[in-house]
Amino acid sequence: MVNGIERPLDLLNSAKGKEILVQLKSGKQFVGTLLAFDIHINVVLDNAKEIEGGEQTKSYGLTFLRGDTIVFISPSSAAKA
Amino acid sequence: MVNGIERPLDLLNSAKGKEILVQLKSGKQFVGTLLAFDIHINVVLDNAKEIEGGEQTKSYGLTFLRGDTIVFISPSSAAKA
Amino acid sequence: MVNGIERPLDLLNSAKGKEILVQLKSGKQFVGTLLAFDIHINVVLDNAKEIEGGEQTKSYGLTFLRGDTIVFISPSSAAKA
Amino acid sequence: MVNGIERPLDLLNSAKGKEILVQLKSGKQFVGTLLAFDIHINVVLDNAKEIEGGEQTKSYGLTFLRGDTIVFISPSSAAKA
Amino acid sequence: MVNGIERPLDLLNSAKGKEILVQLKSGKQFVGTLLAFDIHINVVLDNAKEIEGGEQTKSYGLTFLRGDTIVFISPSSAAKA
Amino acid sequence: MVNGIERPLDLLNSAKGKEILVQLKSGKQFVGTLLAFDIHINVVLDNAKEIEGGEQTKSYGLTFLRGDTIVFISPSSAAKA
Amino acid sequence: MVNGIERPLDLLNSAKGKEILVQLKSGKQFVGTLLAFDIHINVVLDNAKEIEGGEQTKSYGLTFLRGDTIVFISPSSAAKA
Repeated sequence: MVNGIERPLDLLNSAKGKEILVQLKSGKQFVGTLLAFDIHINVVLDNAKEIEGGEQTKSYGLTFLRGDTIVFISPSSAAKA
Repeated sequence: MVNGIERPLDLLNSAKGKEILVQLKSGKQFVGTLLAFDIHINVVLDNAKEIEGGEQTKSYGLTFLRGDTIVFISPSSAAKA
Repeated sequence: MVNGIERPLDLLNSAKGKEILVQLKSGKQFVGTLLAFDIHINVVLDNAKEIEGGEQTKSYGLTFLRGDTIVFISPSSAAKA
Repeated sequence: MVNGIERPLDLLNSAKGKEILVQLKSGKQFVGTLLAFDIHINVVLDNAKEIEGGEQTKSYGLTFLRGDTIVFISPSSAAKA
Repeated sequence: MVNGIERPLDLLNSAKGKEILVQLKSGKQFVGTLLAFDIHINVVLDNAKEIEGGEQTKSYGLTFLRGDTIVFISPSSAAKA
Repeated sequence: MVNGIERPLDLLNSAKGKEILVQLKSGKQFVGTLLAFDIHINVVLDNAKEIEGGEQTKSYGLTFLRGDTIVFISPSSAAKA
Repeated sequence: MVNGIERPLDLLNSAKGKEILVQLKSGKQFVGTLLAFDIHINVVLDNAKEIEGGEQTKSYGLTFLRGDTIVFISPSSAAKA
């Protein structure tokens, strides 16, 4: 398997301490450093920034995102957001 | 880990007694002092204030927020809301 | 902790027999005397009144509110609603 | 406690055999005689009538209402609906 | 209790082999002969017909309806739909 | 019971290897050969075709459909879709 | 059974390491190489690309998709998307 990912959460585990992109159901996106997650896909980001239409609109610092509002998480796309 | 956060709820635990910003699915935001939370992310705020469009619109005092209506919680952004 | 609230349900427990404000996902609000609640946040109000746009629109007497339709509950705001 | 209601379902239990008003998430209301309910708040009404805009629009006789479509139930308001 | 209905599913059990009316959350209705149901309120109808605006629009024969899409079920109203 | 259907899943079991029609909550329909299903009503179709407005719009081959997006499944209507 | 698929997840298991098409409830589609999935249908794609209106709009690399946002998954349609 690529990058040793056998279960979906392995990807989140390997992304700890790195920048990730989080897409919310509302249409908004967050980028920030992944500090923690759980099986509900609740995540905590450090230095969280909200993105709308490709533009950074707000900065939230440490932020807890509730898992059931998340569509996808991409660790490698944070830099491009 | 930054601030000793290993699990998502650690962030909420460290924010007890401090001001937090809560984003609801309806689009409204609340700021208030975090008194309590549980694993469903139900939270109790003291001195809760509702924010719409960056303006404080209502004051609710002690307030129970049901977890499944919450998108994100940011402890460090309450002062800026 | 303020008012001895360590868990979110402690706030509802302390509000039994008092007037509370309940915000529903539909946008409507109820005020009434809290008689009972459970872990699903199902609540029973006595002397329940529906509020829309700050106006009391209907009176329902004893009313059972299903927990999954509730956004927030504020015990101290009922008088102001 | 008023009317011996300690848990939310106590209100429904005391309303068995009486007329109740049921508000659905779709905006429609039903009135009918409560025959049975369960912990999911599934209910069975006898002589069920659908109400829209204060007018009785349809008559369904014995009807099973699925709990997750219910917003509130008011035993004492059926006569006024 | 009327018709020996003590629990909500008793009504569905007594309706097996009879015509029922099923209201879906989408606004559509089905009528058909109830063959089977389970605790999720998944139901199987024989000779299922879709109703929109009081008109029969389609005929589906044997049909499985997923419980979480159902608002209400009325055994005695099928003939009138 | 007609066709030996005592529980809702019996209908799906008897439809294995046959063409079925699947209605999704989004309004789209799929037809295809039922290969497998589980208690969540997740299904796998072979030779899956998407139907919109009575027209076949796309062909997907082997397809996994997530159960919570399904409204109804009709084995006998696939030929007519 | 075709391709040895007895349970729905067998299709996803057989698609590991291959390109799949994922339809989201929001209307967007992803194509990418399936690396991992779990019983919630959370999936991890490598080389994930977002598709809207038949056009590839964005490239996300390694991506975690939350299961409850997925409508269907088609392994054999990725090349045509």
